[in-house]
Order: sequence, then structure tokens, then C-alpha cells
Amino acid sequence: MRFTALALLFTLPMLRADEGMWTFDNIPVQQIKAKYGVELDAAWLKRLQLATLRFPGGTGAFVSRDGLVVTNHHVGRGAIAQVSSAKTDLVKDGFAAANRDQELKIPGLELMMLVSMEDLTAQVNGAVPKGTADKDALTMRRNALADLRKAEEAKTGLTCEPVTLYQGGEYWLYRYKKFNDVRLVAAPEVQVAAFGGDPDNYTYPRHDLDFSLFRVYERGQPYQPQAFLRFQPKGVAMGELTFISGHPGTTFRQQTHAQMVYARDVGIPFQLRSLARQKAALLVLSATSPEARRIAAEAIYGIENGTKRLSGQLLGLAKAENLRKVEEAEAVLKAAVAKDPDLKFRVGESWDHVARAVARQQALLKETAFEGTGRVALLGHALTLVRLPEEEGKPSALRLTEFSEGNLKATKARLLSPRPMQKPVEAALLAAGLQEAKDEFGAEHPFVKAMLGSGSPEAVAKAAVEGTKLDDPAVRKQLAEGGKAALEASTDPMILLARKLDPFNRAIRKRMEDEVTSVFSEHGGRIAEARFKVFGKALYPDATFTLRLGYGPVATYANGTGTLAQPFTTFMGMYDRHLGWGGNAAAAEDGAWTLPQRWLDRQGKLDLTTPFNFIYACDTVGGNSGSPVVNAKGEFVGINFDSVFEGQGGYYVYDADTKRAVATDARAILEALRKIMDADQLVAELIGK
Amino acid sequence: MRFTALALLFTLPMLRADEGMWTFDNIPVQQIKAKYGVELDAAWLKRLQLATLRFPGGTGAFVSRDGLVVTNHHVGRGAIAQVSSAKTDLVKDGFAAANRDQELKIPGLELMMLVSMEDLTAQVNGAVPKGTADKDALTMRRNALADLRKAEEAKTGLTCEPVTLYQGGEYWLYRYKKFNDVRLVAAPEVQVAAFGGDPDNYTYPRHDLDFSLFRVYERGQPYQPQAFLRFQPKGVAMGELTFISGHPGTTFRQQTHAQMVYARDVGIPFQLRSLARQKAALLVLSATSPEARRIAAEAIYGIENGTKRLSGQLLGLAKAENLRKVEEAEAVLKAAVAKDPDLKFRVGESWDHVARAVARQQALLKETAFEGTGRVALLGHALTLVRLPEEEGKPSALRLTEFSEGNLKATKARLLSPRPMQKPVEAALLAAGLQEAKDEFGAEHPFVKAMLGSGSPEAVAKAAVEGTKLDDPAVRKQLAEGGKAALEASTDPMILLARKLDPFNRAIRKRMEDEVTSVFSEHGGRIAEARFKVFGKALYPDATFTLRLGYGPVATYANGTGTLAQPFTTFMGMYDRHLGWGGNAAAAEDGAWTLPQRWLDRQGKLDLTTPFNFIYACDTVGGNSGSPVVNAKGEFVGINFDSVFEGQGGYYVYDADTKRAVATDARAILEALRKIMDADQLVAELIGK
Repeated sequence: MRFTALALLFTLPMLRADEGMWTFDNIPVQQIKAKYGVELDAAWLKRLQLATLRFPGGTGAFVSRDGLVVTNHHVGRGAIAQVSSAKTDLVKDGFAAANRDQELKIPGLELMMLVSMEDLTAQVNGAVPKGTADKDALTMRRNALADLRKAEEAKTGLTCEPVTLYQGGEYWLYRYKKFNDVRLVAAPEVQVAAFGGDPDNYTYPRHDLDFSLFRVYERGQPYQPQAFLRFQPKGVAMGELTFISGHPGTTFRQQTHAQMVYARDVGIPFQLRSLARQKAALLVLSATSPEARRIAAEAIYGIENGTKRLSGQLLGLAKAENLRKVEEAEAVLKAAVAKDPDLKFRVGESWDHVARAVARQQALLKETAFEGTGRVALLGHALTLVRLPEEEGKPSALRLTEFSEGNLKATKARLLSPRPMQKPVEAALLAAGLQEAKDEFGAEHPFVKAMLGSGSPEAVAKAAVEGTKLDDPAVRKQLAEGGKAALEASTDPMILLARKLDPFNRAIRKRMEDEVTSVFSEHGGRIAEARFKVFGKALYPDATFTLRLGYGPVATYANGTGTLAQPFTTFMGMYDRHLGWGGNAAAAEDGAWTLPQRWLDRQGKLDLTTPFNFIYACDTVGGNSGSPVVNAKGEFVGINFDSVFEGQGGYYVYDADTKRAVATDARAILEALRKIMDADQLVAELIGK
Repeated sequence: MRFTALALLFTLPMLRADEGMWTFDNIPVQQIKAKYGVELDAAWLKRLQLATLRFPGGTGAFVSRDGLVVTNHHVGRGAIAQVSSAKTDLVKDGFAAANRDQELKIPGLELMMLVSMEDLTAQVNGAVPKGTADKDALTMRRNALADLRKAEEAKTGLTCEPVTLYQGGEYWLYRYKKFNDVRLVAAPEVQVAAFGGDPDNYTYPRHDLDFSLFRVYERGQPYQPQAFLRFQPKGVAMGELTFISGHPGTTFRQQTHAQMVYARDVGIPFQLRSLARQKAALLVLSATSPEARRIAAEAIYGIENGTKRLSGQLLGLAKAENLRKVEEAEAVLKAAVAKDPDLKFRVGESWDHVARAVARQQALLKETAFEGTGRVALLGHALTLVRLPEEEGKPSALRLTEFSEGNLKATKARLLSPRPMQKPVEAALLAAGLQEAKDEFGAEHPFVKAMLGSGSPEAVAKAAVEGTKLDDPAVRKQLAEGGKAALEASTDPMILLARKLDPFNRAIRKRMEDEVTSVFSEHGGRIAEARFKVFGKALYPDATFTLRLGYGPVATYANGTGTLAQPFTTFMGMYDRHLGWGGNAAAAEDGAWTLPQRWLDRQGKLDLTTPFNFIYACDTVGGNSGSPVVNAKGEFVGINFDSVFEGQGGYYVYDADTKRAVATDARAILEALRKIMDADQLVAELIGK
């Protein structure tokens, strides 16, 4: 089998480029050596592994002997906000501790260092006697892994996490050391860290100083890490090979061709149309007053962000070559499956099952989209309240998933979150959603009749939103704690609306689960099994929020304006764009390209030719934010913070032409620390002088 | 009729934005006043008309009392090359005359100023008695216009050109004053004028100092123009209204919806695939040696340029909203036609005729594409030679169009042009074309069998190209002058190949003419008639290489990288990109972003915050190169030189979201003249100090 598999690999076009988010036990060192002449040894890899840290929702790295940690500003922003006050807004004004005493402890912030990984596949599978039914086997494996974890934690004192790779092809235990005394050391102003604001999000050329510095302490002393990445003050050059270590979150690359065609032709276009309608409704609201504009801004940003992400994904899926690659890879796998009687029996029909489920998904699309709560938080809370007493009365296994034992706590926390809501925004979105349902289903559809009665979408939305008291967390708490009686007594109009929604929503959720999701899970899983059996670890596993390595050179690409993107930007580019938008005086587009005053006052001090951001052909997705970018010597040359719009199709399929990650150059960080942030002592610490 | 027409106008979404290339007799002054509060009077318009000049293939403008003329560097480049020598390459090194004696006369360069225009529609139509058959009427009109022109030229001493607007809705005579003593005054280095080279062509953000200065002389003295546009040293601001006057060349905006759908789904994709194959063939050639790379570079550039233009057009056509606008406008016109019995009789069926012809066009596409000479110049020459004796023996009306009395001279000039050819490039392109025909038609197709015999595409191409002597203009001349006998005696392998091609090419040309082109011409013309009858001059006529006015503000747009484009760039941006590509040392991408040494030496002298290029929402196409951009006061604020990739769909349909023209800012010209080109005297002349 193996020989065939290796021969097949060369027929998979996807493997010809710098694709992949590789686990540290399985780095394609031969491939890298053959292509780039760079040899990675075990010590190099171990050092990078130990220097890389997991942040909540992102990545960071040790960058000094004394436990300095770098991550993105946008990864650290919550922490920076935490130690800000009404008087000192460190997010807005930036911060640099003049000495260690001034470093600001972030309560509750925990960082995790991957100490070691152990492959427990044999033990886990060994816990399942031959002939065990599939469902029981799953439980047995899960229990075996849980037991092994518990034993490991007791033995090592480390935090151990079970990791399932290759959709069950491998079971691992990852052992982490946790750090919980983490202090803020330095951060630039958010306006420079996120220069270009929402419009520049996901794009390049870029000019973002997207970094922040923290320090890990242990027992009150700066922690001396086993490994750290020293800043290389000479940076990196065009064409130079780079490596990135970090925690990519989620990819859809294992979807079948039929699923991706659906995403391209139906799913994403439908979502984009919905988002456009929501945005239009909010723009109408915005136009009514400056105050309305202010309160609608965040929701509009959320919609634009989603629109950009989905549009970028669509760009990638719309490129014929990309889906052809998926089709070809699928054909290769199908052929291999057809030749193996066991695989054929188990997986042979799986693609057809998935394709039929996709057809069902399409048939149910409108119901799925409209018979829910959309972006309307008040309706979401109301539905949770309506369901809570009923669901809590059932055994966990029979509940709606968000009410199961494992999820109930988080669901309640969301319900009682004090996050404020904007009623006019809620009303506009609810009206838009109801209107869309009416337009798409027709006025006589049972759902539309139930929700609207004889009212217009606007009137129904207005009445429910204006009349409800659920925007008050205390009211929600009271209803949640009051149980069935309190709920049934409630005449809150949003509760009444949620009651109408409930049966429709339950029905469509059940159909989706029965006809679509369960099929994707079962047969997608079988296809993954086949892929692992045929190709083994010559492929990388799907992203799982665990540590991975990517590689690729600093490289241009043909961008969406029709030119080749410059591999680097400089500080000059930042001032160019600042001026090109009319500067702080114009404050165009909500001030996206404005600059803090000291960046204008000290402009003359800066070496404006300093490289600022760069692009490189490493394979990344969300979760790689804050990942260190290192050169072949393992020196720190930049910090990853984004990837380009044109390559967002990478969630589905890797495209060497457009997949470019965006990093802040190490030299820009050093220059800013020196000339703007008055932090020479940190520069010395980072470059080891 | 008129009332209905005006009501209909509001249903045409295309008229809601700053669309239009308006003739100077019909500027939408009310529309401009209503939207921007800017009132254009007759004197303002006359001044702009008289200040604008027609260059060969472009536009320019008088910009000083003493006859200084500005145009693009790329419009003036041929003239600059003409007065260069082996020792002094003014294209490469730039030029600035220190005084008027140093200004360099360009032999043969003629500029034209539109003095006045006269509407002769009544006279022309009056020459046709009622009841005359269509075809005779056309000849009568043409003759009447020719007579009127002759009389005018005799009377005024001016050069008069007949202009047909609205596809025959109006007939005009445009009277021009010609200038033929034109001298080069100043031009920057081409590397700054066209900074970013081929990759940046059609794109933005841009940093091109795309200007050159000439001076018009009469009787040995600087000409004192009736009108000129003074440079406004304060430039223009974001959102400020601008106007552009110039000579847009060709648009396809009158095509029917069916034709545009064809272009989107069939025509352009087919062309792009062919270009991709040609490029692939040339890249194989390029890889063989540095010399091969050098000689293939120009052909590859031509292919990339075409690919970018077509891809941009496709972007526009692929946007559903754009073709929906076309469809809606067509529905409105059809409805108006249906209500008018005369129009209905004459035009009612025309859309269907066009649609059927489009189906025929698609059926004939491969034959049209392959049974020709492609980009292979040698085969083109051979085919011309093969046909020359035969065609010259026929009455003009029966000849292939390029051999008709009117066209024969130009055809012979092309045939005998000394432009050198690269045989390896010719062989690669011929082989690629033959291979494509074989792949698409199959080996048994009569055309493929005739062309290839038993040989492979590569072998046939190699034999024909290596064996031919037609790359020598003298050989072509000899054969052209030798008549039938010389031709029949020729054993040149390219002549033999052309002989095989000839009957196939004649046949497909005839079918295309009979089944497609003639229908487009006849029924496209009728639709245009209907449009003019219904909407009259509320619409602008198709581009005709004659003087037009456009208007629109300096404005951003959502570009292809996913962000909003900066309205202005600055000199900082130029240095940023220079550095971002590794500077002159790296000379990346054939040195596209390198800079002349004095631009590095004198960088410190420049005010780097000076605005460099800007984008504005005027409706332009090719032919607008070198057009002056003026503010509401008619002051010169920039010179148009390009339009953005994402808006190239504008050839077919105007899209307010993406149609942006690109100009070099007047301030950048002044700053460069002062600080780099040592031409303070020109600055003084331009700003009138």
C-alpha cells in the first residue's frame, strides 16, 4: 500500500508548493532540504517548539533570556485594556515600562508552552476489543484517552490535552506548562498597531505595528525560558526562507468537492446577499442621526468584516484551478479506495452520501437561514429563556446541544453576559430578517404567518424590541432562575416572539441534523480515515488549534489591483497613506489612517526606510495571529498578524498563487521601541546586547 | 415622445453617476450644477476646448501663455526617442531645456486644436430625397459630408474632419488648427515616468511622473495660444470636483446584453486561455538561455498586457449588477420601441437578430481563432503576399477589406515595415497556435491536416520559420513587387504554409461576415437609431476619438486587495515601493521599481509629502492619455495617464464603484521640475509667476 501511496502523492498538485500546517513530530524536513537546501534538526525544532506560546485565541513567543514574550497587539489588546483605566487608556496611548517595576500584571492571563507530545494511538486503539460496534468504540477510545490524560497530569504536574489528528487517525497527548504571572511590558498605540483600521483588515500592502510585549514571571522573578528567539536586527530579505510556528484554528480543506461547489455557488453567495441586506438596513438606520450612526457602527463593522472574509473565500473557490485541484485529489483518493476491498466497502459510497446531503442542505437552506435568530441578540436570549426549563428537564443526551451538560454553563454565561445591546440596531436587524423571510418564502408561508400575524416586518420588530425588557441582564437572570412558572407568566413581547419561533427552529434543526450534519460527520469521517490509510503522514492533519509549523519564502504575488505586491513596506509607506488620505485633519473613513501625535512629532527621528511589514508564502489561518516568524537560523525576523484578502480561499484549498501571510518586521519593532517609545532597554534585551 | 423619454431616463440606473464622455456642444451643465453646485458657462467650456490638443494617439494641453504643452511621457515617448541619439538617450536620462534655444524640434509631430464644430445633420440628411433606399442613402450622406468638408477647408484654411455621432444620429464637421513646429522642452527619466513598469500598468496606488513638456512654435516664435490652463500649485483635494477633456477612443457600451454575456462567458475566457498558452510557450523558450529570455520579453509583455486588460474587462462583466444594468436599460428601450409602430417595424426584431448572430459567433469561434495568423508576424506577411496579386486584380468593392482602395496603402506599409522580428519567438508562437488548433479540432480536422500534413506542430513551425527569408523586408518587397509570377515561383516555406491557410481563412472570414458581423452592423445600427430617437442627446454618443468632457470628484474605491484605495499617493510612496522591492541593488522584476541615480541623490531635497498621483471618478478610456484634469475654475491640477484594473469593465459598461482614472498631480510635476530637473524657469512659466 505504501508504495502506491507515495507514487500517488506526486499526482496531488497540492503537494507541490509550500503547503501545510505540520505537526512538530512530522516536519517534512526532507522536502524542505530538497527545495531550499535548509536542514532542520531536532534541536532546532525543539527550540522553536519551546519558545512558542499559546495565548487565548492566538500565539506568542519567548524573545529574551528574561522571559519577554511578543505577540500581536490585537492578541494582547484585551489584556492591555484590562490594565487600562478611565484616566490612562493604554490601548489608545500605548505603554512602555521604563523598568521591571513598572510592568503591569494582567490578572487571569494564562500562557501555555508545549513541553512534549506523546503518541497514544496504540494505547487508545488497544482499549477497543476487535469487533466492537463503531459507536461503542468511540466511547471506549474517549474514555481511554481521558484516563491516560488524568494519569499523565498526576504524574507530570503539567496540563495535558488530548489531541485527535487526522480525524481519528492518531491520538496524542500534548503536555503544556502553564504560566499565569504575565505582565504587560510595552505596546504601541492601537492606531499604529492597527493602522488602516477596518478597511485594511485582511489586506496588503500594510503598515501595522501589530505587536505587544509581555513578560512571564515565576515566583515573582522574570522567568528564564528554556528557549527563546532572539531578534535578528538585520531582518529578512526577499526570497529568504521563513518558518512560522503557531496554532492554526480551523480549515475546511477536507470537505468534498461537492461541498466546496455548494459553498461557492450557493452557501457563500446566499450569506453575502443576507449580509448585504443587513448592512443596507443598518445604513438606513445610520442615516437618521449622528447618534444612530455611532451605535450602528460596530454592527456594520461586523457585517463588513464577514463580507470581506466570505468574499475572499469566494475568490479562491471561484478560481477554476483551485476546485480542479480538489477534484483531482478526490479522484486519486477514490481510485485508491476502489482498489482496496476493505476501504471500498467502508468508504466507497461516502462521496455519494455527502453529495446527497449537500443537495438536502441546499433544499433546506432558506429554512435554516431564516427560522433562527439571525444576528438579533435579544431574540437569541429570548429563545434560550423559552427553552431552558424544558431542556433542563431532559437527560443530557436528549437535549439541544447548547443545553447539554458540557455546554450548559457557557450557554448560561452568554445569556447573562452584561454586554450592552443597541435596541435600534436590534430592531433594524430583526425587521430585515423578517422582511427577507417574507420575500423569500412568501406571505403565506406558515413561518411568516406565525411570526408576523397581520403585522409588517418592521412593525413586528419594532413592537418586540421596544417592548422587551430583556436588554437588562437582571431581567434575563430573573427569568432564567424563575423556571417554567416565571417563563409562562411572562408577557414580554420578545419572549412571545421566541415562543412562535421555537417549534419552527426545532423542526429545521432536527432535519438539518438528520439529513445533513450527521451525514457529513459520518461519511466525512470515513473519507478522512481513507485518506489517512492511503497517504498517512505524508499529508498534514486538519487545523486543530494545536502547534504547527509552516514554511515558505518572503515572496510577492499578483494582487487584486493587477500588480505584483511589494514584498516589504516601509515607514515611508505608512506616512504616504496617512497623507494620501488627508492626514489627521481629514480623518477620512472614521480616521482609519490617522496617526497619534507623537508619530508626527517624532517622524524626523525615525529611519523612514526601515522595513515595516512583509509578506511570505507560509500556510496560515486564523489562530496564527502572533506567531513568530523565524529565519533558517531560528532567529526572530517578524510577527505574523494577518493574511491577504485574495488568499482567504485557503480556508478551503491552498493556492500557492495567493496564499500570503502578513508580518510586522522585527526591524520596525526595534525602530519604534528606540525612536518613538523610548525603550532602548527593551531593544538591548531583544537583540541581546 | 420627449416626455416619455425623460421619464424613462430616470429608470436608467446608468445615468445616476458621473458617467459620460460628453461632446462639447452638449455638456450636462444642469446635471452638474444640481449634483455639485458648479456652473459651467460657455466661456469656461470654450477655454477648455481651445486649450486641449490632440496628439497622435492621445491628448495634451496648452499650459502657458508662451505655448507650453503638457502631455504624458508615454504619449510623448516616441517624439522624445526621435530626438535622442546613441550618445544621449533622453528617454532613459530625461531632459530639460535650460532655455528656449535648447528646445528640440520634433520632425513630423503634428498637434491639433479643435477650433469649432458645426452640426451638419440637416444638410446631410437634406441631401437624401425621401424614399431613397438605405444603401443609396448612406452613399448620398457620405458624399454630401465630403463636399461640405471640402468647401469648409477651402473657405477656412482649417483642417476639417467629418464626425458621425450616435451611429448616424448626427453629422458634424470639426474644424482643427494644426501645429507642426513642436519642440521638446522637458521630460523626466522613463524609469520615473513609468515607475513600476509593466506590473503597475493599469493599476493603483501608483507613483508615475507621467508627463512631458513641449512647446508649440509658429513662424519661429513661441505660439501664443488663445487659451491655456494655468497650473494650480495648491493642487486638488479629496472629494473636489474635477473635469477632464480629451479624446476617448473606443467603447463597446452599445453592445446588446447578449453580446456582453458572450464576451463574459465565451469570448474573453477563450482569449485568455489562448494568451495563457502563448505565454507558456514563450516561457519555455525564455528558459533556454539569457538571450532567449531577452528576445521573448517584449512578446511576453504584450501577452501580459492583453491578459491584464481582458481580465479587468472580465471582472467588470462578471459583476452581476453591471450586466443587470445593461439588461434593464435594454428593457426600457425595448418597451419604448414596442410603443412606437415605426420603430417597432424597423427595430423590434433587431435584438433577436443580434442574439442569433451571437450564437453563430460562438459556433464559429474556434475556426475564427485558429484559421488565421495569430500573433505570428511572418505568417501574416506571407498571407498578405499570397493574396496581393489576386486581390489587386479585383474591383475594390470585391476585395478583402485590407486590400480595398482605402486600406491598401496601409497594408503595404505594414508589410514592408522594417520592424525586426525574432524568429525563435515566431516559431514558438506558431507552434503553440498549431498545437492549440490540433488539440481543439482533433488531428483529423481538414484544417489541421492541411497545415500539419504528417508533421508535429513544433516541427512544422520550426521548418517554416527557420527556412523562411520573409524576415528580411527586402525579400518581402521583392515578392510584393514581383506580382503573381514571383509569388508562384516562390518556394519559401512560409509562403507555402500561407497558401495552405488561405482558403480556410477566406472561408471563415466570409462566414463570419455573412452570419455575424453584417448582422451586428445592421441591427446594432438600428438599435442605435432607436436609442437616439428615444433618448436623443440626454445620452452621450459612443467614443469616436474626438473631443469629450468628463466630470467627477477625487474619490476612493474598494479595490481588489480588499481595502479602500488612498485618493492620493505621495513621493514617500514611490520611495517606499522602491525600497520594498529591494531598491536598485535587487532590481527585482526586471527593474520595474528601480530609480535613476539622481532621484536617490536628491531625495533629501524633495518635499516627500508632495502629492504624486491621484484617482478621480471621471469616465475615461484609452485615448484620454495626456488629458488635462482641471478644477471648477478650469485650473490645471493634474494629467490623466491611466485607469484602474478593477474598472476596465468600463469598456462595456460604466460602473461607478470601480471606474477610476489615474492622474499625475500638478504638484508632483512642479516639485520634480524644481528639485530634480533644475527647471525653475519652467515652474515660473507654468504657475505664471
